[in-house]
Amino acid sequence: MRKLSILFMLLIFGSNIYSQQALWREGDILSPEVNRDKTVTFRIQAPNVDSVQITGDFLPQVEMKTPFGNFNVPGKMDFVKGDEGIWSFTSDSIASDIYTYNLIIDGVRTTDPNNVYMVRDVASVFSVFLVEGGKGDLYKVNAIPHGSVVRRWYNSPGLGKTRRMTIYTPPCYENSNEKYPVLYLLHGAGGDEEAWIALGRAAQILDNLIAQGKAKPMIVVMPNGNVSQEAAPGESSQGFIKPSMQLPNTMDGKFEETFMDIVNFIERNYRVKAEKKSRAIAGLSMGGFHSLHISRYYPNKFDYIGLFSPAILPNENVTSKIYEDFDKTLKTQMENGYRLYWIGIGKSDFLYKNVVDYRAKLDKMEMKYTYVETEGGHTWANWRVYLSQFVPLLFQ
Amino acid sequence: MRKLSILFMLLIFGSNIYSQQALWREGDILSPEVNRDKTVTFRIQAPNVDSVQITGDFLPQVEMKTPFGNFNVPGKMDFVKGDEGIWSFTSDSIASDIYTYNLIIDGVRTTDPNNVYMVRDVASVFSVFLVEGGKGDLYKVNAIPHGSVVRRWYNSPGLGKTRRMTIYTPPCYENSNEKYPVLYLLHGAGGDEEAWIALGRAAQILDNLIAQGKAKPMIVVMPNGNVSQEAAPGESSQGFIKPSMQLPNTMDGKFEETFMDIVNFIERNYRVKAEKKSRAIAGLSMGGFHSLHISRYYPNKFDYIGLFSPAILPNENVTSKIYEDFDKTLKTQMENGYRLYWIGIGKSDFLYKNVVDYRAKLDKMEMKYTYVETEGGHTWANWRVYLSQFVPLLFQ
Repeated sequence: MRKLSILFMLLIFGSNIYSQQALWREGDILSPEVNRDKTVTFRIQAPNVDSVQITGDFLPQVEMKTPFGNFNVPGKMDFVKGDEGIWSFTSDSIASDIYTYNLIIDGVRTTDPNNVYMVRDVASVFSVFLVEGGKGDLYKVNAIPHGSVVRRWYNSPGLGKTRRMTIYTPPCYENSNEKYPVLYLLHGAGGDEEAWIALGRAAQILDNLIAQGKAKPMIVVMPNGNVSQEAAPGESSQGFIKPSMQLPNTMDGKFEETFMDIVNFIERNYRVKAEKKSRAIAGLSMGGFHSLHISRYYPNKFDYIGLFSPAILPNENVTSKIYEDFDKTLKTQMENGYRLYWIGIGKSDFLYKNVVDYRAKLDKMEMKYTYVETEGGHTWANWRVYLSQFVPLLFQ
Repeated sequence: MRKLSILFMLLIFGSNIYSQQALWREGDILSPEVNRDKTVTFRIQAPNVDSVQITGDFLPQVEMKTPFGNFNVPGKMDFVKGDEGIWSFTSDSIASDIYTYNLIIDGVRTTDPNNVYMVRDVASVFSVFLVEGGKGDLYKVNAIPHGSVVRRWYNSPGLGKTRRMTIYTPPCYENSNEKYPVLYLLHGAGGDEEAWIALGRAAQILDNLIAQGKAKPMIVVMPNGNVSQEAAPGESSQGFIKPSMQLPNTMDGKFEETFMDIVNFIERNYRVKAEKKSRAIAGLSMGGFHSLHISRYYPNKFDYIGLFSPAILPNENVTSKIYEDFDKTLKTQMENGYRLYWIGIGKSDFLYKNVVDYRAKLDKMEMKYTYVETEGGHTWANWRVYLSQFVPLLFQ
């Protein structure tokens, strides 16, 4: 074995040089490092810069004034310069969760060059870390059976295109002949079929809840809710385009009208229980809007509906084709019955008032729902919590 | 529709503020921008920095002196500062391919904050762009039928663990009852089951070659060749560890000895032609080493063998258990017959000499092989070319 070290050196060195510059010159710098007391230390070697800051959703928020009102935004903290040009910052002790952050190097916002773990959210990329020992454990890959995650293309006759979706099948799926229930899980504006897997940690949450016996094994279907797209940015023939939140036809009924293309594809291609009591639909923000409308468009299809920080906007300022017959179809949905109509929102969500209004509407018509109100706003931190609470209620 | 714009503003703005800082403050800065003349412009808003540079595999190389000899490394180019603190650099015209690069901001090497497309190579992350109109078109997602890509866990009794692999099934797989041939495609040192998909563009290459009628529809199995790992960094219960090239037991025979765990899993779980003439194995660097040895360990299993820049090192300085009975088993492999033994390497690859020696060995024993020599070194640019050349030769 000893003699092999020459090869290893060559491989490491050669690769470093030739192919890929595959190891940073920074060498052994570890960033972030989650310490035993759950403080987190971030480091960067930057001898020639004047300032290094960090911003992220683990930092105390500060208020920002805008024409739309005052919003809380993540604060910034300064790194301190140490020996050999290595700057560092150590946080306070952080509650267990998964977090995102950026470094700001001489005013330029970027990712942490020592951390390879990143997520894209619309057109932004964030570095990621996870603090164990609590809620974060549900978002972690644990030593338990794992489901499969496939990116698969389907034909949508209604939209006249083939489109990409992400499908989670539970650990037992491939070694059984059983049929499984299905959760259709929808992303928000600017998201796509990668959002729930990457930002939402959906595969980890499902693996963990199933292993703990808290959720029934189920298939989770994560389609692309932007009808103008075939696939997530970079995954379609549009190439490496800059992602945008402003896409056409996202909330005008087109996705709702063609949603059965997705259900039909799944029911033809997977061993599923093709029945109302074995179908759930849930989504965040725009995906909550989609879930609300899809479930009333097809009032015999879904027994479980989850609206996470839903974008619900019928009021005197909004007109859209999708609101035609809203009350009537909602009433039909109510009369047809369902097992769960779940609404979750954070107290400081900018859509909070819309949800208050929608609940008043439901109360008035005596349509039953489960309501969960949390701290926080329109955040993935909340959407992961909502998914974790919603999934154990399904198909029981 | 017009009235909906308020919601969109809220969604965009709210999301921006609350959840995700989801759109960069840089706004509409486009970087990189591939221009019509195939020059590429890179931009970054950085009013407070003293220098911005770029380095990447599209730039002319410079020679670097090291104790191991002189190596060519990608050069660096300076950005020029313009109005509003926007720095830019425009390259010369670039040949069609997919490229990686980093920005260097006041000496700190990082990714391009305006480009969401990145790849990880061991512990480094690079920004990516693609120049169309030639070789790069084979690496692009085109408007053609697409195969499915699944990340799936399998049990390896030989290694005593469950492990993760990536599997590509061709576009027709799911809508037929046919059986398909299988290519086992192996990564190099520091890589994992994500490498060929992310850096190698394997799914795009297969989709394109199949659509062009140049390759038979086939399943491509991309396992993790590091026997100490369950899965790629970040995808196992080890959590978000810093990736390393230095892993135990990568080249001592353990992967070879237990490789039938992978073949058996695939043949039990997919509609495959379970016969020698419908099995191929290929890999790059360490994966070339693995392919060489696996194919001689199991001389009745593979009719197609591909060694891409293979790490072949038997000489007087190297001893390893894996070289026991090397000549004898290679002879058996030769006598048993095969349809293709394909070797590709770049003229400036640091493993070039090893391949010269290995070819001499094969020549001496009159073992037939196909040899392809290219420009360049130990690079993904070459390995994508080798895959593109190798795949059309399979299962014909």
